[in-house]
Amino acid sequence: MIVGVIGGALADKKNLDIAYELGKLLAEAGYTVVCGGLSGVMEKACQGAFEAGGMTIGILPGYDTSSANPYVKIPIATGMGLARNYIIINTADILVAVNGRSGTLNEISAAFNMGKKVIAINSWKLKQAGPVEEDLFIEVNTPDEAIEWLKSWEKNGT
Amino acid sequence: MIVGVIGGALADKKNLDIAYELGKLLAEAGYTVVCGGLSGVMEKACQGAFEAGGMTIGILPGYDTSSANPYVKIPIATGMGLARNYIIINTADILVAVNGRSGTLNEISAAFNMGKKVIAINSWKLKQAGPVEEDLFIEVNTPDEAIEWLKSWEKNGT
Amino acid sequence: MIVGVIGGALADKKNLDIAYELGKLLAEAGYTVVCGGLSGVMEKACQGAFEAGGMTIGILPGYDTSSANPYVKIPIATGMGLARNYIIINTADILVAVNGRSGTLNEISAAFNMGKKVIAINSWKLKQAGPVEEDLFIEVNTPDEAIEWLKSWEKNGT
Amino acid sequence: MIVGVIGGALADKKNLDIAYELGKLLAEAGYTVVCGGLSGVMEKACQGAFEAGGMTIGILPGYDTSSANPYVKIPIATGMGLARNYIIINTADILVAVNGRSGTLNEISAAFNMGKKVIAINSWKLKQAGPVEEDLFIEVNTPDEAIEWLKSWEKNGT
Repeated sequence: MIVGVIGGALADKKNLDIAYELGKLLAEAGYTVVCGGLSGVMEKACQGAFEAGGMTIGILPGYDTSSANPYVKIPIATGMGLARNYIIINTADILVAVNGRSGTLNEISAAFNMGKKVIAINSWKLKQAGPVEEDLFIEVNTPDEAIEWLKSWEKNGT
Repeated sequence: MIVGVIGGALADKKNLDIAYELGKLLAEAGYTVVCGGLSGVMEKACQGAFEAGGMTIGILPGYDTSSANPYVKIPIATGMGLARNYIIINTADILVAVNGRSGTLNEISAAFNMGKKVIAINSWKLKQAGPVEEDLFIEVNTPDEAIEWLKSWEKNGT
Repeated sequence: MIVGVIGGALADKKNLDIAYELGKLLAEAGYTVVCGGLSGVMEKACQGAFEAGGMTIGILPGYDTSSANPYVKIPIATGMGLARNYIIINTADILVAVNGRSGTLNEISAAFNMGKKVIAINSWKLKQAGPVEEDLFIEVNTPDEAIEWLKSWEKNGT
Repeated sequence: MIVGVIGGALADKKNLDIAYELGKLLAEAGYTVVCGGLSGVMEKACQGAFEAGGMTIGILPGYDTSSANPYVKIPIATGMGLARNYIIINTADILVAVNGRSGTLNEISAAFNMGKKVIAINSWKLKQAGPVEEDLFIEVNTPDEAIEWLKSWEKNGT
């Protein structure tokens, strides 16, 4: 299963630690991590997965694979700018959002558009803001809860 | 000035009427309308602008210009799917959102990512949901208020 | 009918004059011109069409409509880099190539991929180079011949 | 080093055998293979690399990773249609073309646009057709010659 990790280049220590732990747990569960390939939450999730021996894919906005963070094993240079967000969503089976600002909101909404679920940790509180399909947006509190949720979804599809 | 109108293919009569009125006022103010080129809010905004003699551009997700609604004067067939949302945002100087679901949220957040302002009528209530840059998101109640706001922004940049 | 004009940013006077004449004749025939929106052949074709009162669309690689040449009436800022070539092809009903290097070859081949015809003036000699579908690639010598060909195609589809 | 293999979905047995052998040799040399992820030359190159234990990436035109051929280890679902060709080019350090029709010509020219070298086996004869930068287009006769060339380029940059 390919899990997309979405979250900003800028994050505080608490959220970076969450991203690292999440990446580690994803790799330990045997999942491939796909993300935007840059810094912050993206890098920490890759580092966690990388150090646990997992596969990491970075879908980069620019033309050059060398812009990937050092924990990306497979860098994809799209040259599509922020439109690359859609490639992350299309490639992932399911998404986990950690924190994030407007870039992450763009990825969350792209997932909804493609009918894909987003598990959110410490991220946007969308249900009060507009017509979110309830079953596509799951708020959890920790990486452990996210993994539990992913494993259940992988088995049962819900 | 090019004004992007964003909003869903599905909308109720009230919001379709708002879209039509908005398109009409935009054309009367001399603004070009760019939108996603399909039905619902997109079509009604184009119709309003078209019938007032304005210019209308439709940035289509598919490969075929014939998928544009009949009020699009300039159809652009991107073949990029929903990633075409970013092309609407990049082409517009400023955006007006009318109602909308996850597709519109995707466009609103893309605008924030590119540092562009969104004037929202009857749309997402984002300020309670996450870290929205206050000065990029303006909530108004009617097309008239939106036009007033646009004219002021065109003159003063604020 | 929307006619795509493809050709490089760099061209000698002879080819720039051909591009200008072509744009003028396209506008006089009532056709809309779509091109890459930048300099060289693109600019001269736009200028010819613009000065004859025609409609000109520029599909730009960058994020900013201000990068369009001054004869583009409708600038589309894709932010997709050279992948924007496909948007020119998808938007045009048929293409005319003037001179050009690898960028133009990329557009010619994209047209073939989408099953669209290319009328070539002073451009690549592809028929000796590989498996070109004969009926998609028409070599002519002047803008006048190109227009004659376009008018016949518009009427008869061949 | 990431090597892009470009070539058509349709090819005869001779060229499919060349693609298989090429994929095998690339993997044995320790190179990662990136390609368009579909059938024909793409599939055979992936199969050769896969069976030799190599890494294979498929950059797919559609929205669904399940459209990849069975020898793609990392499927990337772009949803960008044929504009995904540019993502293959941007991700690869260097390209090898095997046979091919207009899709392959589109990828070869995209490589030239990005200043990347293409080693061609049994493919387009471009040097007679237009202004190809000589040092970006290298014609060889066999996969072995291509590998020799790649190894030399990796070491010496020429």
